[in-house]
Amino acid sequence: MSAVLEPAMADLAAYASRVGERAAVAARDLAGISGERKNAWLNACAARLRGEQAGILAANRADIERAPAFGLNSAEIDRLTLTPAGLEKISKSLAEIALLADPVGEIIDGGVRPSGLSVRRVRVPLGVVFFIYESRPNVTVDAAAICVKSGNAVILRGGKEAFHSNLALYRLLRDCLEEQRLPADAVQFVETTDRAVVGHFLAMPERIAVTIPRGGKSLIERVAAEARMPVIKHYDGICHVYVDQSADLAMAREIIVNSKCQRPGVCNAAECLLVHERIAPQFLPEAGNVLERAGVELRGCQRTCELISGCRRASEQDYRTEYLDLILSVRVVDSLEQAVEHIQEHGSGHTDAIVTSDLESARRFVNLVDSAAVMVNASTRFHDGGELGLGAEIGISTDKFHARGPCGLRELTSYKYVVEGNGQIRG
Amino acid sequence: MSAVLEPAMADLAAYASRVGERAAVAARDLAGISGERKNAWLNACAARLRGEQAGILAANRADIERAPAFGLNSAEIDRLTLTPAGLEKISKSLAEIALLADPVGEIIDGGVRPSGLSVRRVRVPLGVVFFIYESRPNVTVDAAAICVKSGNAVILRGGKEAFHSNLALYRLLRDCLEEQRLPADAVQFVETTDRAVVGHFLAMPERIAVTIPRGGKSLIERVAAEARMPVIKHYDGICHVYVDQSADLAMAREIIVNSKCQRPGVCNAAECLLVHERIAPQFLPEAGNVLERAGVELRGCQRTCELISGCRRASEQDYRTEYLDLILSVRVVDSLEQAVEHIQEHGSGHTDAIVTSDLESARRFVNLVDSAAVMVNASTRFHDGGELGLGAEIGISTDKFHARGPCGLRELTSYKYVVEGNGQIRG
Repeated sequence: MSAVLEPAMADLAAYASRVGERAAVAARDLAGISGERKNAWLNACAARLRGEQAGILAANRADIERAPAFGLNSAEIDRLTLTPAGLEKISKSLAEIALLADPVGEIIDGGVRPSGLSVRRVRVPLGVVFFIYESRPNVTVDAAAICVKSGNAVILRGGKEAFHSNLALYRLLRDCLEEQRLPADAVQFVETTDRAVVGHFLAMPERIAVTIPRGGKSLIERVAAEARMPVIKHYDGICHVYVDQSADLAMAREIIVNSKCQRPGVCNAAECLLVHERIAPQFLPEAGNVLERAGVELRGCQRTCELISGCRRASEQDYRTEYLDLILSVRVVDSLEQAVEHIQEHGSGHTDAIVTSDLESARRFVNLVDSAAVMVNASTRFHDGGELGLGAEIGISTDKFHARGPCGLRELTSYKYVVEGNGQIRG
Repeated sequence: MSAVLEPAMADLAAYASRVGERAAVAARDLAGISGERKNAWLNACAARLRGEQAGILAANRADIERAPAFGLNSAEIDRLTLTPAGLEKISKSLAEIALLADPVGEIIDGGVRPSGLSVRRVRVPLGVVFFIYESRPNVTVDAAAICVKSGNAVILRGGKEAFHSNLALYRLLRDCLEEQRLPADAVQFVETTDRAVVGHFLAMPERIAVTIPRGGKSLIERVAAEARMPVIKHYDGICHVYVDQSADLAMAREIIVNSKCQRPGVCNAAECLLVHERIAPQFLPEAGNVLERAGVELRGCQRTCELISGCRRASEQDYRTEYLDLILSVRVVDSLEQAVEHIQEHGSGHTDAIVTSDLESARRFVNLVDSAAVMVNASTRFHDGGELGLGAEIGISTDKFHARGPCGLRELTSYKYVVEGNGQIRG
């Protein structure tokens, strides 16, 4: 197992420049490579991952041994740990990405103009993706697969805690690129954990088309402030479930429990329950009971606390917090409009749901709530690339520019206009 | 006519903050307003522009009188000058924008997922557009019309040379917003020519969704470096016409003359002619002759100079220059591949054309040239929103992210996922 490589990298700027230049050349080559060849690479990686589990797991053990020194707690070590079953899951995910349609070359729209020109808008890769991510090593493989399948070269910058695991996975991906005679530099891994190297990449807009940071808010903010190229941001998911006066209360209970508890640590989990005052006296005591039995700590407004005995009072800060934990803020609202105002004021534009049986309430909520995903009578947990039909995703964008919501293959592309004539000139 | 307003604006930061906040509120209101009402506003503006020509022309005269003091040359004063015919053209353009389909609410795609969830991707406005532009006052009206029609509020920052004209046009637009009971702050004009105010707007990513600078390269570079929100950039158009060995030479001649001469001062005019060596001896002397008679100064490589007597030698810098004038660089190339390499190395990714009768050459050129528009047997001048079928545009983007090529109504939008179920939860 290689040691950390910093000592050899005296000149980080030159290193970053070299990596960026290689990525740009690889991206140009990759743009013209058929879907069939990209899929062959994905399937080769899947096969090799199955065949070389021992080496990957050994690398992973090196990270796990160092984990306490990095201050990782047991949940974090758990996320870091690779198992044979986990590797099998990564292999399957690669095979699934191979089955997705190639976005490159798709004709988005087109037609014949009055001038006789045939115009078509054709999907093309963005170029080079700089992907910065934190500890889970499976993300290394997913991100590389999504970038290459969409015709982009990727520069992977993983967290120091997963350095050895990421490096081992990266070498496998790269070996397969060489074996399949694809440009090997289509996937590169930043082989230093020195944080200063990131700044050099962020100053390279002529080579890197987009930077995608995936991690904590401070990481994303630093990257967004420093990057000189576009950034696809994945900020907080402060997601709401609003229970309308007309809601089917059993459905509402199932939806809030699922939205909060099915996987509380992810961005599309609900953090706040809003309840119409008309049904609050009937709904809240029962729903509160079910949530508390599921281990959820409730923090409510005054009216909530009057309806749920022992409920702790929520502060203004609670309504602005992404708990990522079994905690839920609750507020009784006067109307759908007040629910919408609360969401506009406190939400993060990620995922917000209404439970209602009234068509006009559904329509108003859908129109007024400007979030990446607006759910009607469904759990917030469905805001996910697979569930919405995009397939694998590299993250969920809270931006409105370029990519919103799940960031899959399509979101990593641009387009060009191809215009064919037979000698047309402008008069 | 109002004087320049700086003295009253001691606190530019507070002013910018107020304008930004008003725009954000207006954008939220505007997002829900029907296409019919937006069109009524566009038509009202068109009618009023016809009825109030005298006032607008008087304001324009105030700018023209000050123009020499700003150092404008006669061509620039010409661009600044409004005439009754020019105002009529602006009115017509408003009426044409009213006829375009409303992009807001368009269902981009969708379907039913295996879970039974109905998913649709619905087009929504971006929010607030900060538009920075130079002298031509008609741009004030066009930009406001495109932004409002696409459901966005706009903050207009015009050049100081057109200040009075822009202010008069802006007041008309705003009066019509009030008259039509649309949010008046949907269109705001920065009522100071102090450059420092721009920096305050560029630091407002929470209120402004996108900044669009339209003007010289230094303006765009400054804005791109300083802006904390996405920027849609309109850099150089270093556009090429490549004449393949299989080209119909009469067609090639017409296309290069049209691409260069029909309107040499615009971004989609050709700046460089590349000619395959096999047909150069036949093509270049004749084409050179026609171009020179059209007043074009040619600057060629050595082989070009051998074929066109009196042709001046091009420097490396010539091949990197957007002349925006009746000057054309010329190079003889060994092959289509060398033409593509030249374009990749010297072009700006704006518009590049091939003239060929060979299907495989067309296919290779289209695939290898990564420009916003790639033309086959047509003039580069067709790279334009109207000609490509988008309708009015706010500029032509040389970016690959979000918007590429003509920036029309669609390019000023985002989307959201609307997900409808009947109680689905994730297992």
